[in-house]
Amino acid sequence: MDGAWLEGGQVRFRTDLPALVSTQGERRVKVLFAGVCATDLALLDGYMGFAGVPGHEFVGRLADGPDAGALVTGEINAACGVCPICLGEERPLSGGALDGRHCGSRSVLGILGRQGAMASELLLPSANLRAVPAGVSPEQATFAEPLAAAFEVLEQLGEVRGRRALVAGDGRLGLLIAQVLREAGCSVDLAGHHPERTPAEVGERCGLLDAAATPTLAERYDLAVEATGRPEVLQRLFAWVRPRGTVVLKTTSASRASLDLAPVVVDELTLLGSRCGPFEPALAALASGAVQVDSMIHATLPLGEVDQAFALAARPGVLKVLIDCR
Amino acid sequence: MDGAWLEGGQVRFRTDLPALVSTQGERRVKVLFAGVCATDLALLDGYMGFAGVPGHEFVGRLADGPDAGALVTGEINAACGVCPICLGEERPLSGGALDGRHCGSRSVLGILGRQGAMASELLLPSANLRAVPAGVSPEQATFAEPLAAAFEVLEQLGEVRGRRALVAGDGRLGLLIAQVLREAGCSVDLAGHHPERTPAEVGERCGLLDAAATPTLAERYDLAVEATGRPEVLQRLFAWVRPRGTVVLKTTSASRASLDLAPVVVDELTLLGSRCGPFEPALAALASGAVQVDSMIHATLPLGEVDQAFALAARPGVLKVLIDCR
Repeated sequence: MDGAWLEGGQVRFRTDLPALVSTQGERRVKVLFAGVCATDLALLDGYMGFAGVPGHEFVGRLADGPDAGALVTGEINAACGVCPICLGEERPLSGGALDGRHCGSRSVLGILGRQGAMASELLLPSANLRAVPAGVSPEQATFAEPLAAAFEVLEQLGEVRGRRALVAGDGRLGLLIAQVLREAGCSVDLAGHHPERTPAEVGERCGLLDAAATPTLAERYDLAVEATGRPEVLQRLFAWVRPRGTVVLKTTSASRASLDLAPVVVDELTLLGSRCGPFEPALAALASGAVQVDSMIHATLPLGEVDQAFALAARPGVLKVLIDCR
Repeated sequence: MDGAWLEGGQVRFRTDLPALVSTQGERRVKVLFAGVCATDLALLDGYMGFAGVPGHEFVGRLADGPDAGALVTGEINAACGVCPICLGEERPLSGGALDGRHCGSRSVLGILGRQGAMASELLLPSANLRAVPAGVSPEQATFAEPLAAAFEVLEQLGEVRGRRALVAGDGRLGLLIAQVLREAGCSVDLAGHHPERTPAEVGERCGLLDAAATPTLAERYDLAVEATGRPEVLQRLFAWVRPRGTVVLKTTSASRASLDLAPVVVDELTLLGSRCGPFEPALAALASGAVQVDSMIHATLPLGEVDQAFALAARPGVLKVLIDCR
């Protein structure tokens, strides 16, 4: 099988990967496109100790069965299905329910114990696959996974209509989160290094966050989302949310952070970790056009140039790089 | 006026402090006892840049007025009373309401812009004072403020009955929080260096938290409270709470922490900063005996020996040190 192989801090194209052997309940997908995500770049730096085929943002066609050829994307967490979490028996104090996304025995496409999407084929449990709605292009559908992660913020926060939100980071994930929060009725400000990124699509620009600023109560936000992975930005957000405000941690890239947590205690802030999200609203938003992604595609490179695709995606200012796996 | 003076990393007894001049709405309290808190020790290390009379845990008698002599303690945040927060117009996304405890113009007894309780007298707004219920001794009443801070955890978390809770730290604050959570119906485990501290009073002991442990789902807790101020303990708690579990940050002592936040994101944990709390349930718990504090008093020193009281309170294993201000 053709595919990308990530190991020892390098990613390279290989044509000699063993064919994937499916287990019960899994389906085979011929991959069309895979997206390069900040998590993939973190894997390259050793995150999760992953070695194998990377890639968890994808669109493809079912390889066989009565619906062969159907356009699908998929939820990346393959759960055990039998533990208390998978059975929905766990009720966290923070509200909502747990599901397979938090299964302790899960494998995760291209991240943990499961070969990923940057290959000619992938395998996922049938239950993980989602049909791509009519009117959504294959390229747009590769955004379903990161957009689902953006919708996870809404799922966790509940009603946010009328709230003032600050999204820190105008990269791939920040642009999606800003759009999702705006669609949910937030007044969204977006902070980052790229003021040229269209305000109309993502909310109002607020430039960079001044490290020395002491914003007034009226200037502070009900919620802020950290989507840069930079600890110093997270630290600044503590000053930019109101007392008892919420800061959402949306990236694992900032592995080790040196933080002064006193403002979190003094202002009784809530820091909310947020990871994978629901695909249904993400696909619906792509279908309705509520979230725009076309302008976020920086380049599409063939699978054979996966090393260059990673290098390009790591370059400051580059948005989404797709890999053509056909 | 006699009192303690904290400045430049030192605290000493002075007899030459200027008399306190009250402003409108303030009442004068003759202090009986003041408690030494971890925050006082942090002030000595430069926290808040405070210079003045320290002390925010106290009991005293009203100095004048028709109810002169009445035994009182008090809420330490003196709020402006006119801002949107004080007027209760702010509704944080995380639930509940904001009040004067979060007023941006507040002074805080012995911590921020207001002379504290380690003196013969103190001043607080009338609205801040709370009558000590019958049956509560003056010494017990000095625990009202830290016990209110323990009840703040309940106010923020809501219903916790039947939940498994871990309190990290069997010092002054940890022992109070463990008792409050147990009274609220939690199954409480207490981790710390002092297994001799009575399990019957504080819940079950679970020893220290093994840094290398990988607890199973069943072993993990619904919520954990960090009451040690040590960043490495906070880091360990991330592994000991369940997916979407809650970790309460209950101390500002750990000023700068080096943390790996990836588990917070991957398990979608909630980190909840928690500070001052409601006095009413604290005083009620002292009156009913639901929370026991007598055994926590390590020593009572005269105001003239305040430097030694601080040194004693800083010693590992020492619980509450009271200062006799009469």
